[in-house]
Amino acid sequence: MSPSATYRPMDDASLRPYLGAIPAVLDLLGAEPDRWRVREVGDGNLNLVFIVEGAEGAVVVKQALPYVRLVGESWPLPLERSHYEHRALCEQAKLAPGLVPDIYHFDRDLALIVMEFLSPHIIMRKGLVRGIEYPRFAEDIAEFMARTLFGTSVLAGAAAPYKALVAGFAPNVALCRITEDLVFTDPYREAPLNRWTSPQLDDLALSFRRDAPLKRAAQARKFQFMTEAQALLHGDLHTGSVMLTPTNTRIIDPEFAFVGPIGFDVGAVLGNLMLAYFAQSGHETTAGARDGYREWLLTQVTQVWRRFEQRFVDLWRQASAGEAYVAALFADAAGQAEMALERGRFMRRLFEDSVAFAGLKMIRRVLGLAHVEDLESITDPNLRARCERRALTLARELVVNGTALSSMAELTAMARNIEQEIA
Amino acid sequence: MSPSATYRPMDDASLRPYLGAIPAVLDLLGAEPDRWRVREVGDGNLNLVFIVEGAEGAVVVKQALPYVRLVGESWPLPLERSHYEHRALCEQAKLAPGLVPDIYHFDRDLALIVMEFLSPHIIMRKGLVRGIEYPRFAEDIAEFMARTLFGTSVLAGAAAPYKALVAGFAPNVALCRITEDLVFTDPYREAPLNRWTSPQLDDLALSFRRDAPLKRAAQARKFQFMTEAQALLHGDLHTGSVMLTPTNTRIIDPEFAFVGPIGFDVGAVLGNLMLAYFAQSGHETTAGARDGYREWLLTQVTQVWRRFEQRFVDLWRQASAGEAYVAALFADAAGQAEMALERGRFMRRLFEDSVAFAGLKMIRRVLGLAHVEDLESITDPNLRARCERRALTLARELVVNGTALSSMAELTAMARNIEQEIA
Repeated sequence: MSPSATYRPMDDASLRPYLGAIPAVLDLLGAEPDRWRVREVGDGNLNLVFIVEGAEGAVVVKQALPYVRLVGESWPLPLERSHYEHRALCEQAKLAPGLVPDIYHFDRDLALIVMEFLSPHIIMRKGLVRGIEYPRFAEDIAEFMARTLFGTSVLAGAAAPYKALVAGFAPNVALCRITEDLVFTDPYREAPLNRWTSPQLDDLALSFRRDAPLKRAAQARKFQFMTEAQALLHGDLHTGSVMLTPTNTRIIDPEFAFVGPIGFDVGAVLGNLMLAYFAQSGHETTAGARDGYREWLLTQVTQVWRRFEQRFVDLWRQASAGEAYVAALFADAAGQAEMALERGRFMRRLFEDSVAFAGLKMIRRVLGLAHVEDLESITDPNLRARCERRALTLARELVVNGTALSSMAELTAMARNIEQEIA
Repeated sequence: MSPSATYRPMDDASLRPYLGAIPAVLDLLGAEPDRWRVREVGDGNLNLVFIVEGAEGAVVVKQALPYVRLVGESWPLPLERSHYEHRALCEQAKLAPGLVPDIYHFDRDLALIVMEFLSPHIIMRKGLVRGIEYPRFAEDIAEFMARTLFGTSVLAGAAAPYKALVAGFAPNVALCRITEDLVFTDPYREAPLNRWTSPQLDDLALSFRRDAPLKRAAQARKFQFMTEAQALLHGDLHTGSVMLTPTNTRIIDPEFAFVGPIGFDVGAVLGNLMLAYFAQSGHETTAGARDGYREWLLTQVTQVWRRFEQRFVDLWRQASAGEAYVAALFADAAGQAEMALERGRFMRRLFEDSVAFAGLKMIRRVLGLAHVEDLESITDPNLRARCERRALTLARELVVNGTALSSMAELTAMARNIEQEIA
């Protein structure tokens, strides 16, 4: 898709008159655009992000660039991703109010969204590097996932609005393609943009590229990712897509949104918590200094899953308009009992999916193109490689043998063992 | 969707000048439209079908009505289904040339397709009632399914064209809704349009409505039908959608097309063959007169599956452009061996899906709104009910316990037992 004729990347000079002409934004910031403070703060992989502060308040302006910022103009990327992000934010705001930023303005031609400036929120990943505990996180992210994933499925509602989402997001091909390549394929072949801590991890990178059962499992999950249209996913739900304080959680950046397998979002959260877990020994000032925080992270893994499962099943039990599993068919006692079993089967399947996707998300962050600050901020390559080796060891197990796990407690026990045993 | 302003149901008088203005059709039929013979022959549930014969040749004109013909104007149905049928026919013609009718003209506003007049082909279901063997059928239908289902999946090609199919057919909501209701839901509740041979089958109809494991299984398959976007399905692949001679097979009527689970098409074929099997004792002039034909029908069940499985796996093995299971990842010996195992797993999953969908398609034809001529043409209600009871007995087993079957041979053995044991 070629950029629209009116598209131009914004800067300080162009942003002031542009925002000044939007009454809602002018109200929020206060008049006199010349006196606003404008900063470009984008540190993600894809977009421009401005914070604009006025006398009355502040807003964030997120604008898509026609290429992947991390790589450069050689990797073009459609501006239309901004439309999908905006549409997903609107769906999520309806289903999970208070858990996404408020949207003030959207300009499809400029691929630009003006949204709430979240303060004093920080990107969760940065908080995890610093060792900050977030007492609301597990409950909030579980609530966000349960409400948005259940709520956009045919378990909750009719086929027609669900199919409108399917059709509406299916053209978000380019963003899905990034996931298809970078998560499911590139770590398992010699892709030019792969990188890893070398030479320390050369042995594992090579063995993963030769690991037929792992590649088989990764590609089976890719097929599932491409074809299992269960719900409208966030699509990139790592800890860099969460901004929070100890008392407030917001989910941002759903530009990878499409209708896909529920476990992909859940797995993204779990996998990134486990990356943070294995990164802790790289951030300890003295050995064991982060023991308590490490345990807090594993507790998040079990709690996110437990709470998500509870809320998803609760919503399902209360739903009466879902066109799959028509409630009226199961109104009697035998039907109720059967549906309780079926919900258990469904959640077990989601558990297995989530565990496998978690493993795949971990691997791509260590062997693929895009890495994470949890590990990248460990400057000693030997220390970093040790953390990464542990992460890869657990991740492979989750991808290849995750369906044998009985519970998240078994998974966290496995993580604890690997942390202790792999030097 | 309201009918377009120019839509009008065609008749003898309006069809002549309309077709006469289409050069390709005029060429086929020969000039002098007034001397053409026009017959309306639609005996399906939904549409007008005309055969138009001229001095040079003949064509079929299929036109959608804005309601369900079987029920009447009280059940409106979008004319746009004609567009989906036309688009599916075009996809199928590309992938499985020679196995669908040629298309001469499509008029989206009139919801009208002018297509090849197939002669001396008859609707397969009518042939099965008469006891006719079709030596090419198993191979041709298997080829059609393997080519169209594999060919529209991401096993064969890229995400972008696949997602264009997903988006393009997702709005075919109304036709999918018919399947969702009539196949997966209505037979299991007191739906006003349900009918069955009564009072003979009242006990089974009641027990199915109270059968929690059966309802659970039916609704789990409904969820799969609604969400598992594996390939562009025909969507209504029963023996009434096949026209054939002993030497030529054509698949017609894909107006229910959408991107769904592959096993739904395969199951439709298998289920309808088994309905034909159980109907035979209602068509025998003397007991045992159709023994040979019965066995021929069971042989078709095993051959359709075996041949489909072979061809699907062959196509997969030869494919190099599939974006799921990227071939380059599995180029070495270990990769080849692993992919052989994976294809086996995939086909086993398709086997289980197909068996369950077959059972559901059988049940809806006995307890739901739309019945089949195989059984309806048995005029003695006691005799018909005996055939139907056997069909329902096998079908329930396939839906609830089909995943325990090791092979199609085990399924056909079960059918044989039921035929002999249930009086």
